[in-house]
Amino acid sequence: MSKPRLTPLAKSLPASVPFVGPEAQERALGAPFDVRLGANESVFGPSPRVIEAMSKAAGETWMYGDPENHDLIQALAAHHEVSPKNVMVGEGIDGLLGYTVRLFAGPGDAVVTSEGAYPTFNYHVAGYGAELHKVPYKDDHEDPDALLAKARETGAKLIYLANPDNPMGTWLSRDVIHRMIADLPEGALLILDEAYLDTAPDGAIPEISVDTPNILRMRTFSKAYGMAGARVGYVIGSEENITAFNKVRNHFGMNRVSQAGALAALADQAYLKDVLARIADARERIAEIARENGLEPLTSATNFVTIDCGSEGDFAREVLANLIDLGVFVRMPFVAPQDRCIRISCGPPEHLAVFANALPKALEKVRTQS
Amino acid sequence: MSKPRLTPLAKSLPASVPFVGPEAQERALGAPFDVRLGANESVFGPSPRVIEAMSKAAGETWMYGDPENHDLIQALAAHHEVSPKNVMVGEGIDGLLGYTVRLFAGPGDAVVTSEGAYPTFNYHVAGYGAELHKVPYKDDHEDPDALLAKARETGAKLIYLANPDNPMGTWLSRDVIHRMIADLPEGALLILDEAYLDTAPDGAIPEISVDTPNILRMRTFSKAYGMAGARVGYVIGSEENITAFNKVRNHFGMNRVSQAGALAALADQAYLKDVLARIADARERIAEIARENGLEPLTSATNFVTIDCGSEGDFAREVLANLIDLGVFVRMPFVAPQDRCIRISCGPPEHLAVFANALPKALEKVRTQS
Repeated sequence: MSKPRLTPLAKSLPASVPFVGPEAQERALGAPFDVRLGANESVFGPSPRVIEAMSKAAGETWMYGDPENHDLIQALAAHHEVSPKNVMVGEGIDGLLGYTVRLFAGPGDAVVTSEGAYPTFNYHVAGYGAELHKVPYKDDHEDPDALLAKARETGAKLIYLANPDNPMGTWLSRDVIHRMIADLPEGALLILDEAYLDTAPDGAIPEISVDTPNILRMRTFSKAYGMAGARVGYVIGSEENITAFNKVRNHFGMNRVSQAGALAALADQAYLKDVLARIADARERIAEIARENGLEPLTSATNFVTIDCGSEGDFAREVLANLIDLGVFVRMPFVAPQDRCIRISCGPPEHLAVFANALPKALEKVRTQS
Repeated sequence: MSKPRLTPLAKSLPASVPFVGPEAQERALGAPFDVRLGANESVFGPSPRVIEAMSKAAGETWMYGDPENHDLIQALAAHHEVSPKNVMVGEGIDGLLGYTVRLFAGPGDAVVTSEGAYPTFNYHVAGYGAELHKVPYKDDHEDPDALLAKARETGAKLIYLANPDNPMGTWLSRDVIHRMIADLPEGALLILDEAYLDTAPDGAIPEISVDTPNILRMRTFSKAYGMAGARVGYVIGSEENITAFNKVRNHFGMNRVSQAGALAALADQAYLKDVLARIADARERIAEIARENGLEPLTSATNFVTIDCGSEGDFAREVLANLIDLGVFVRMPFVAPQDRCIRISCGPPEHLAVFANALPKALEKVRTQS
């Protein structure tokens, strides 16, 4: 009995994981984390109306979700003042990024991103055999000029830009994004990952005609709306590009309970506004904690704050390891020079107090050892 | 501003939908269906413990689900008496079929299935550019000899077989499956879609060593467990094949609430047993309704009954259209000669009563017109 044959591409891929989950770390540690501030989830949780809608929908879980996501798409279209034909719902931005790469970038096609940007996008690019080209960050911001130059040089079919940025929390102004869009090279599609746009200042929000054929804007219920576990993302774009998702998406892939939850979340904008205020407070508190420990917080447009630990990557990695040992789940950028930082998700004061208590200990331990 | 460039493969694909959802039909009809007996969902619903677990987990939906699906995989491995390394959880069998095709069948590779078998599998095969070869059913059963012969002829990398079968509800005996496995051609992987195995007689359940390198068994919480909307499927196979899913799967694609629900479902085997008894009763009642109307029910090993309407496909299509108009959501096989049938999902007596009331009217209307 012979072995089945993986495709040459599949054979070449590592059985890798873009991120290790906190649960795996907890199993390794043998204890749950005291606070969970590492995955940019919203510790504030979803609206009580979301929980109510999901609990109610649990009894309907015997039914497949509507494969057209009709009600949610109608609501999103109304919310964004676009046509339902300009919106596609998918299994989180992660799922939608996978579909986008699959649609536009085949084996050998060039794709451009920033060195240290979202690893799951890179995972999808590798997974479809496309060739990833990276440009460095510039002063802890993604660098549109460098991205465009690299796209021109390589004839890229896709350009990935997160605004606001993850893992640095920085953002580019509307004008910079507008100029970038105007300069997009022939045949390149810009994936604008706006997972964190809800928490960004108005000046970071570009005005983009929804019919623009070479832009896809990705949004999510995972961050400010507090529904990471529900896997609901959506993409806004031209009708032609949106229709293309129907060629490859898992039509019955959406969860029925999540559809109900997202609809309730969108309807409760008052709760979102309240959470945004609490996120703003938390950003200030995290920055304060950083400064109290002699570290420099980066100004954040997201639901997390990236803290410059003021030394090389190895120093930050040790600080992070100590925080983990102290029961504080946080993460950090993977590559230099951003890896001199650690990244703390926003949360309620009592969660940040745990971090405030742990950080000096974590730093002390590294400083004593070195 | 030029258009982005779809890959040649993506360009060639239709923006098609394997199935139109009942919600889309309801929107077209302008009214909800009276009963929902078309998608082989479990109208009996999930265990109350599942609903309780999902409601409780709704408050935790701000957290991503464990990307390793650790607890669920441990429980499934214990349930099936295999190692956790032999189990992978995914976004329904639909999602797992997509990953499997992606791993094993690239552009131009041959894949074999039956004419009229699961269209979503065909959708994935087309979506990855592989070449689908079909063999006819034999007496309303999938035909292992024909599948094997075609696989040999085409050098197929994948063979798809659902046992029990959808859309006919028939099954192959354990011995037939064992012989088929023994005869699998070199380098071919058998995808054994066992979505309906929970409702099958013991004699349909093959004994397959979990280390067999050329078989993947697909199972789901969507059918007997009553959790179609939760999107939880899993695959059992050799460690090497299971590990391969980590090359391409959407690691954070699983819903946290669904993970909790599936765990509760698996733990409540008493509820499953009760549902299986109710499904058996419903099968008998559907068969009885068919006979009362002069139609022939096929013996079913699934949670639905396929009814031979005794004429050509056009006749059955009209019967189906009339049932839809009468507020009864049912479906039917897509291709001849199976399309002489309609397919009714099991449900509680009061739901079947609605069907029993509608069927003679639907038949009468066709007979009067023709």
